[in-house]
Amino acid sequence: MSDATGGPRGGRPRGRRPGESVTRTAVLEAARARFAEDGYAGASIRKIAADAGVDAALVMRFHGSKDALFAAAMAVPPEAAATLAEALDGPSADVGERLVRAFLRLWSDADTSPAMLAMFRSAVTNEQAAANLREFIRARVLEVFLPRFPDVPDAALRATLVSSMLLGVVVGRQIVAVHELVAAGFEEIVTLLAPLVQQMLVPQPGAPR
Amino acid sequence: MSDATGGPRGGRPRGRRPGESVTRTAVLEAARARFAEDGYAGASIRKIAADAGVDAALVMRFHGSKDALFAAAMAVPPEAAATLAEALDGPSADVGERLVRAFLRLWSDADTSPAMLAMFRSAVTNEQAAANLREFIRARVLEVFLPRFPDVPDAALRATLVSSMLLGVVVGRQIVAVHELVAAGFEEIVTLLAPLVQQMLVPQPGAPR
Repeated sequence: MSDATGGPRGGRPRGRRPGESVTRTAVLEAARARFAEDGYAGASIRKIAADAGVDAALVMRFHGSKDALFAAAMAVPPEAAATLAEALDGPSADVGERLVRAFLRLWSDADTSPAMLAMFRSAVTNEQAAANLREFIRARVLEVFLPRFPDVPDAALRATLVSSMLLGVVVGRQIVAVHELVAAGFEEIVTLLAPLVQQMLVPQPGAPR
Repeated sequence: MSDATGGPRGGRPRGRRPGESVTRTAVLEAARARFAEDGYAGASIRKIAADAGVDAALVMRFHGSKDALFAAAMAVPPEAAATLAEALDGPSADVGERLVRAFLRLWSDADTSPAMLAMFRSAVTNEQAAANLREFIRARVLEVFLPRFPDVPDAALRATLVSSMLLGVVVGRQIVAVHELVAAGFEEIVTLLAPLVQQMLVPQPGAPR
């Protein structure tokens, strides 16, 4: 349809529509919504293109295949791993609080939340999306955690337990919308969870475990 | 099709097939699988009946409507609340461990796990199933927790946080199948989570919170 060096009419700077990044975002949003609603098998490039108001050929040009589009739509936003890494740096005395705060923000901020929630909803019902999420945890979450806790022998298990626990709170609060979790303030939840996460990540010698 | 006092041919004891409870279970299992796969809108009584190897009229006689069938299929197993209540009774010094153990068992035992997982998968993608789960938490989980923690002012929030955290671990272990959580032994996970749940349910005066 178009060679790799530019659009069919002219070079990259002027040959593509000025709103291409807007269009790409619209395609990814339409894909997330369709995959979440119809499942992987039921969603088609044609329907996703129609939802995004573009041509199916354009979606193919952006992503190449339904598989690749799915992977792109379900990818954990790149800022997620960086945000977690940032929270883990700094004094270990309050790493629990920093991590709880960063994790909950990632799942509630308007910039990152839709992609994270779509990824999670898909992972619960679709094996490929679950595999993506497993891979993200293996490659990115542990890559961020492990070098920071070199002295904790079961650090990988502790890191995945913390991630799962916090994810459960996100599910209760934002997906199931459990009344008490919705009604509680962000800070109230951080205050209650921070010491638990602290205890899991920085086990005190002699503490009951 | 049939009046409320019995089947069309004869009274209750002999008019129904001897395997009726088996048939009812098969219908509920087929419904759970269909609702999980096709979503609420896509699943039909006809398809569910075919999956269960029975007539659609029989499914209607059992449940009356697709709504009622959905509610029955997605209901939290009645033993769930009783199991949690039992875990909360006994010495408060190790209520955390008892609760973690009971909660994880409920979601992994062959008797209760399929219904619980189907209910959760639906709640993530279907508003009616999410409402069922909210109602279960409001009416049954809190009913079990609150009388047992009369001195904890934010007991409802703590109970829903504990439930969400533990649910997150179940999701990580049994739905997303995170490697570390699958590889870890049941007892290893209980040992790591118990002190956290203990701290949330029985806050120590003077403990950092």
